[in-house]
Amino acid sequence: MGISPLDDLADLLKDDMDAVNALILEHMQSDVPLIPQLAGYLIAAGGKRIRPLMTLACAALLEGDMTRAHRLACAVEFIHTATLLHDDVVDESDTRRGKDSANIIFGNEASVLVGDFLFSRAFQLMVMDGSLETLKTLSDASAIIAEGEVLQLSTQNNLETTLDDYLSVISGKTAALFAAACEVGPIIAGQPGDIRAALRTYGQALGMAFQITDDILDYSAVQEQLGKTTGDDFREGKMTAPVLYALEKSDSEEQSFWMRTLGHRQQKEEDLAQAQILIQKHNALDSSIALARRYGDEARTALAATPDTQIKTALTALIDFTIDRAY
Amino acid sequence: MGISPLDDLADLLKDDMDAVNALILEHMQSDVPLIPQLAGYLIAAGGKRIRPLMTLACAALLEGDMTRAHRLACAVEFIHTATLLHDDVVDESDTRRGKDSANIIFGNEASVLVGDFLFSRAFQLMVMDGSLETLKTLSDASAIIAEGEVLQLSTQNNLETTLDDYLSVISGKTAALFAAACEVGPIIAGQPGDIRAALRTYGQALGMAFQITDDILDYSAVQEQLGKTTGDDFREGKMTAPVLYALEKSDSEEQSFWMRTLGHRQQKEEDLAQAQILIQKHNALDSSIALARRYGDEARTALAATPDTQIKTALTALIDFTIDRAY
Repeated sequence: MGISPLDDLADLLKDDMDAVNALILEHMQSDVPLIPQLAGYLIAAGGKRIRPLMTLACAALLEGDMTRAHRLACAVEFIHTATLLHDDVVDESDTRRGKDSANIIFGNEASVLVGDFLFSRAFQLMVMDGSLETLKTLSDASAIIAEGEVLQLSTQNNLETTLDDYLSVISGKTAALFAAACEVGPIIAGQPGDIRAALRTYGQALGMAFQITDDILDYSAVQEQLGKTTGDDFREGKMTAPVLYALEKSDSEEQSFWMRTLGHRQQKEEDLAQAQILIQKHNALDSSIALARRYGDEARTALAATPDTQIKTALTALIDFTIDRAY
Repeated sequence: MGISPLDDLADLLKDDMDAVNALILEHMQSDVPLIPQLAGYLIAAGGKRIRPLMTLACAALLEGDMTRAHRLACAVEFIHTATLLHDDVVDESDTRRGKDSANIIFGNEASVLVGDFLFSRAFQLMVMDGSLETLKTLSDASAIIAEGEVLQLSTQNNLETTLDDYLSVISGKTAALFAAACEVGPIIAGQPGDIRAALRTYGQALGMAFQITDDILDYSAVQEQLGKTTGDDFREGKMTAPVLYALEKSDSEEQSFWMRTLGHRQQKEEDLAQAQILIQKHNALDSSIALARRYGDEARTALAATPDTQIKTALTALIDFTIDRAY
């Protein structure tokens, strides 16, 4: 077994992931050279390919047609890549996957348009597959992703944001695609509604745990020790779980701090450290981890209905692995 | 009959356009308030709804199921609206349909994301319709639109751009959606391949003529007399037909002028007037109109194969009307 359940899945599905990577390269081609240049820049930077891996794993778990799974996994990755390109424009990001982000190198304009291209390509791949069920699942997910992103924009810098608002945001922007990526597996395998619903729930809950953990890491001292970037969410005034839990218990002086730094985005050099101190003081990272664990439990329960195979073992281990990144 | 073939079509298809407008309002709704606010702002500003009208007209011409046509016409308009929102971000536009553009009022971020939402909604509508053929036609068109837009970005400010490059750009960014909007009609009506190909060709050629005429109008003195904006393409350094024809015949001093103003975008107050003088000197508007007329002829020929009805009369008249705007 590998060093992580993701490695285990990638090992178990190595030939399939190779096929998906070949399809990604093939379908990002265009007669317009800037398109493969920009798409290739982002895709070559790697990333964990966790969403297409979910599609492959859920299809393989139920002995679905893997040729169809390859194509649909590629569509899932293209939808994800399109949202990354658009996110970076929206967030005015300057790094992605440890490199300058595409909008910095190629400009916002090209990032928006190549995102549109990849999104269209994803639908072309689904049409090639020819299943209206997968088209429905992934077009519904795409609309929900956009809604989640717009809601995030509305809650940004807004200290009235509730934990429910936050959960709606991440359910849209992250969990919807995890859910759809997993649901494609049982659709391909022609599995009955309860197995399909179970894997959809697994993906949805795993996605929630994944995003909450990402949001924890953005305030984590551990990340800093590893030399990774922290504080992106803080700088952008995103209302994430660690902040919401700290805000809930804050006194009036602390409220003024959050209002200045997140509400008005008037930030000084030392403010991120101060934010981390307040988050620590109110055990807000622990509360966030507990929240992620509740989704982890939901994901684990959902898997109970599926066949016991090596893939299920890895999908189960992936739940804790996703959350344990927070330590 | 109305004052224009567009009015005639809108009169002939009044109940259908009312149904499409109701669907547009219904399907731009979302629990995230910013989405209908922003989408409604752009959609309420009007626009000619020419693309959904094409879908309705081509479906009605062949006696297709109009309930299906309503839904697919709404999808076509959503794809168009999404591209407008993204275009305005890309072009850093500040007006659209005579109002402040959405990116100015709501921000670039929201424009990108609401565009993504409308694009996803378009695919949801196509999935509801349930035809893989229309899904293929419109997802292919969407990919080609994005390619055209990226190619336009690559040719902008580039004086090496050829007329063929220009034709590729407008074929993608404009004609592809006209072609697909028309092709949906025969698909719904279950018409044989030659009628389908004919209406596709009509839409493609009409779209080319439409965009060439738009590009003429951006340098037209007539437009200025009507108080409409001119010079947008000039300011952005877009390489359109009037410029390309003028450039072809330019002497070295004129070439320096174009290189400074379009190539390097170093523009002074009086440069637009000077550009218009050079375009006039080389009869570049006439050459552009002749180009548009060639596409008009192609569109007219394509219609020959279709049934003789009032709608066909209006679709035929629409060709000259589209180009006569240039005078």
